[in-house]
Amino acid sequence: MSRFFSKKFEYLTPYAPGEQPRDLDYVKLNTNESPFPPSPLAQSFAQAAARQLELYPDPECKALHKKLASALNVSADMILCTNGSDEILNFAFAAFCDIDTPAVFADITYGFYPVFARYNGVPYREIPLTDGFSIDIEDYFDAQGAVFIANPNAPTGKVLSVSDIEKIIKNNSNDVVVIDEAYVDFGAESCVPLTKKYDNLLVTQTFSKSRSMAGARLGFGVGSPELIADLNTLKYSTNPYNINRMTAAAGLGALEDAAYTEENRKTIIINRDHLTKELQKLGFDVLPSSANFVFAKHESAGGAYVYEELKKRGVLIRHFDKPRIKDYNRITVGTLEQCEILLAKLKEILL
Amino acid sequence: MSRFFSKKFEYLTPYAPGEQPRDLDYVKLNTNESPFPPSPLAQSFAQAAARQLELYPDPECKALHKKLASALNVSADMILCTNGSDEILNFAFAAFCDIDTPAVFADITYGFYPVFARYNGVPYREIPLTDGFSIDIEDYFDAQGAVFIANPNAPTGKVLSVSDIEKIIKNNSNDVVVIDEAYVDFGAESCVPLTKKYDNLLVTQTFSKSRSMAGARLGFGVGSPELIADLNTLKYSTNPYNINRMTAAAGLGALEDAAYTEENRKTIIINRDHLTKELQKLGFDVLPSSANFVFAKHESAGGAYVYEELKKRGVLIRHFDKPRIKDYNRITVGTLEQCEILLAKLKEILL
Repeated sequence: MSRFFSKKFEYLTPYAPGEQPRDLDYVKLNTNESPFPPSPLAQSFAQAAARQLELYPDPECKALHKKLASALNVSADMILCTNGSDEILNFAFAAFCDIDTPAVFADITYGFYPVFARYNGVPYREIPLTDGFSIDIEDYFDAQGAVFIANPNAPTGKVLSVSDIEKIIKNNSNDVVVIDEAYVDFGAESCVPLTKKYDNLLVTQTFSKSRSMAGARLGFGVGSPELIADLNTLKYSTNPYNINRMTAAAGLGALEDAAYTEENRKTIIINRDHLTKELQKLGFDVLPSSANFVFAKHESAGGAYVYEELKKRGVLIRHFDKPRIKDYNRITVGTLEQCEILLAKLKEILL
Repeated sequence: MSRFFSKKFEYLTPYAPGEQPRDLDYVKLNTNESPFPPSPLAQSFAQAAARQLELYPDPECKALHKKLASALNVSADMILCTNGSDEILNFAFAAFCDIDTPAVFADITYGFYPVFARYNGVPYREIPLTDGFSIDIEDYFDAQGAVFIANPNAPTGKVLSVSDIEKIIKNNSNDVVVIDEAYVDFGAESCVPLTKKYDNLLVTQTFSKSRSMAGARLGFGVGSPELIADLNTLKYSTNPYNINRMTAAAGLGALEDAAYTEENRKTIIINRDHLTKELQKLGFDVLPSSANFVFAKHESAGGAYVYEELKKRGVLIRHFDKPRIKDYNRITVGTLEQCEILLAKLKEILL
């Protein structure tokens, strides 16, 4: 830290992204990436855009917003694309929380939420998940703050129904409810249709997972035109050209190739069910997952031990050193081949 | 604005980027883009990266930071790449200003500075340029705040010498001095070598101008490892994967093709000198420019009039409706062909 760093960030501990080691060719099941390449259309659109980088991108992302609006059956002024969904989440913490309006979220959820809160200088309150790692929706009624819920939740993979979320939205009509749907395509129902009914709902999604575009950085938010206008005010006050030309083009390509996304989505769900059964056979307790990862605890081996032993053997999974979940690991669902390597290494370690 | 928008942003007026109209095929001389495509190497590296977007980018940007460090003759821990230089400027306002440390900058400079200050909730003080639109360096001695200077300045194109900037740095040893070198390659000397000597200096640059990559969004900052650590704290607290894979690859390609950048840089300088002389023949007062644009005022026609009449004729330049500079226009230096079209249209309007 320099002697010039503002004291307002004194207690800011940055988010630690999943490790991206370069020393070995790991089977990488630690950051919930897709094991499939992006759609050929996404690739070719991005490659064409790489030829005309001398011009700024369209700051309004008109073409992308229009196509996304059509895919989601909302109007284009209800959408804002950002440099990954982290950017729109950060904007949401800035826009809808302040010293009088804390952020409210689960104790076990996306680890970036408390960081966004601290960065933006807003207080936050964590609500413990139940013993079974579920959300008790009544805990979120009249939350007296802006509510952030990942659905499916990470790292648990557990899901809330749209009707339950609607109850939370109705019982917080004076505050914004943000539903972070990064993993929605793998088994949850989206709340996007509710954005036309409730002015206090913001839904965020990403192209990183089901559309195989983590490397392109494209996220977006859907909400009432007024909420989106607020978020646009922040975008135009920090980085008007936040989406580069290649990423915007790749996004258009991915949207045109919905069949490709759908096929990969189905494959991941099949592989997840297979992986779950096989992990159970090895003595793991696996939470029911609606995401492209599973959250699993072994009956005897500790979470950190399993993580370390797998890493030695060239397989990366994600371990969180937090009291309630230290016995668990989050394992990304990869190809069947990747699942088999993981399972073979686990047998070496556990049997 | 929604009823949920935090009151802290009540007085935030977003930055208005130069218009990007899609209705006509304009000769676009309004946002200081390069008229040349990106280097063939930048294009091909980006195109290769488009094939593996399923994986997150390296959050540490190791390869890019290493190559940039070598090009700039500093160590890699003195560099941070961002999603355009707007992102690092925003981080600098957040990190090095606060309620007790205002931002200090010229009254006529990059119009985003006051927006960054307001977004981050920090006070700012504007120091008027001299009547000739120059910076009197003594105005910045003991500024009692973090100093932001664009060098060359925009929209004036005027330049400070490194020795003058060094005096400002020495006379503000308790605050950070940020030198925004977006346009440095077109005629100014860079302050990057001073970053090894002064711990309170941050230099920002961009790949948008001389490297023809405005559409890829790649900027960076150079400063002491401690300053860069502060800025990294903010990056990892907002958007760890801020640089996508294609942009990082394009940046590597552009750095490998330094000869291409150098050739284009020289062409722009030649075209700028030609354009300046021809504008003078038409009755324009043209400020001496060290950038890829000129700032010019006609002896009789008003700035808004010239801008509007050119737009009707398919040529876009940038007009700023601010009291001290409303008689001027900022005109990007394009190809010779673009300059000739501009001059022909100006003759229609003025003669």
